[in-house]
Amino acid sequence: MTRLAYNGAMEYRFRPIGVIHSCFKEKFGIPRQPGLAPAATATLELLPPFDRDEAVRGLDGFSHLWVIFLFHASADQGWSPTVRPPRLGGNDRLGVFATRSTFRPNPIGLSVVELAGVARHSGRLLLELKGVDLLDGTPVLDIKPYVPYADALPQARGGFSAAPPPAKPVRFTAEAEAACAREEFRLPGLRRLIEEVLGQDPRPAYQGKCDRRYGVSIHDLDIRWLVQDGGSALVTGIVRKETC
Amino acid sequence: MTRLAYNGAMEYRFRPIGVIHSCFKEKFGIPRQPGLAPAATATLELLPPFDRDEAVRGLDGFSHLWVIFLFHASADQGWSPTVRPPRLGGNDRLGVFATRSTFRPNPIGLSVVELAGVARHSGRLLLELKGVDLLDGTPVLDIKPYVPYADALPQARGGFSAAPPPAKPVRFTAEAEAACAREEFRLPGLRRLIEEVLGQDPRPAYQGKCDRRYGVSIHDLDIRWLVQDGGSALVTGIVRKETC
Repeated sequence: MTRLAYNGAMEYRFRPIGVIHSCFKEKFGIPRQPGLAPAATATLELLPPFDRDEAVRGLDGFSHLWVIFLFHASADQGWSPTVRPPRLGGNDRLGVFATRSTFRPNPIGLSVVELAGVARHSGRLLLELKGVDLLDGTPVLDIKPYVPYADALPQARGGFSAAPPPAKPVRFTAEAEAACAREEFRLPGLRRLIEEVLGQDPRPAYQGKCDRRYGVSIHDLDIRWLVQDGGSALVTGIVRKETC
Repeated sequence: MTRLAYNGAMEYRFRPIGVIHSCFKEKFGIPRQPGLAPAATATLELLPPFDRDEAVRGLDGFSHLWVIFLFHASADQGWSPTVRPPRLGGNDRLGVFATRSTFRPNPIGLSVVELAGVARHSGRLLLELKGVDLLDGTPVLDIKPYVPYADALPQARGGFSAAPPPAKPVRFTAEAEAACAREEFRLPGLRRLIEEVLGQDPRPAYQGKCDRRYGVSIHDLDIRWLVQDGGSALVTGIVRKETC
């Protein structure tokens, strides 16, 4: 950590301690909070010089972790004093500090994730995570154990976001069903992941409710679907993406 | 947010969005997690250009906030791959990422606090906080609403820190009792705050259990106590500090 004076205000410099390898390859489709898609997995790779076994000793006693990370895909877009939360249909403006929006003065994200394992593979120290809402390539600034007696406040008042968004129905065409079954051998839990992600109706709130086609990259697949009445999804295709 | 290449690794710069004005004037005595001293109050002052009313619009719908802050008093001391958590009596070394220790690669702290009010006083935009474990002068990097459906996981497994530390008994001498009653007119809740702070037995874990005198600064007071059998406290003095 280095301090800098900058336009009269103090500045602090941080280096990433790790990087996220996630099933989510683009911002579109990522659940808007962690835990909404329990089948969404990621690996947190600790980077040198922080990738030491002793630095994570005892971490496996905790079921969940806080990940403090950089909103790297939108960090260059600056901040906005007010934003339109998708949960409010995109119609109402709230203060950025009253939301978990990415358009913050310091583009720092905070997510609690399930810790499924700690392992070393090919020399790399990896934390296996579940229930993520993290984009592939996300730089990680810190991880902390989830301490339930301090962090769990189920009685807290949750403002405009008091309850989780209701999941919408997700159906598959026969062709998509067959493709999903084939890919599931290689990617266990794929069907549940697709249902959880599309069930959140990831369309931007300001989109009309018309019959429209969408696509999203999950793992190395292009998932295509049609949005129908009330935001329910019909999966129409699951195709491996071209690799160069 | 600015990116810098630094020894081949990316660096990120952050500016404080606010600063904490807290009853805790020194690190010693601060509860080791938020919520352990509900009577501990602080004010978060938003700094220009982030001190705009619209930036906190809707925040008052939430009962609790996440504060992401800098461990400014220990930030210059660097990180350690392992630390000795006080909860383990100071005898066992755990990985720094398995603890909430301040000696982290990026000295970033995370605390959930109660939001008691949002107000503008003398032109300054202030958030009134309760249950803090924050040192006076702490630079704040971000605040986020506490979203109970995502953040509250009471069933999480809490490793070595599964339950809150049991509170130790706190008694007052007749003289300290009278001084506390006098100061309480000016500082409502003082007695409860002293009981909550000293009940946590703030001594470093490696201290012997001998009869010893301690002092701590809370608000503008010097609180003096004697540690007795089993870590119980006898408050012996409450004195206003000299101001220059």
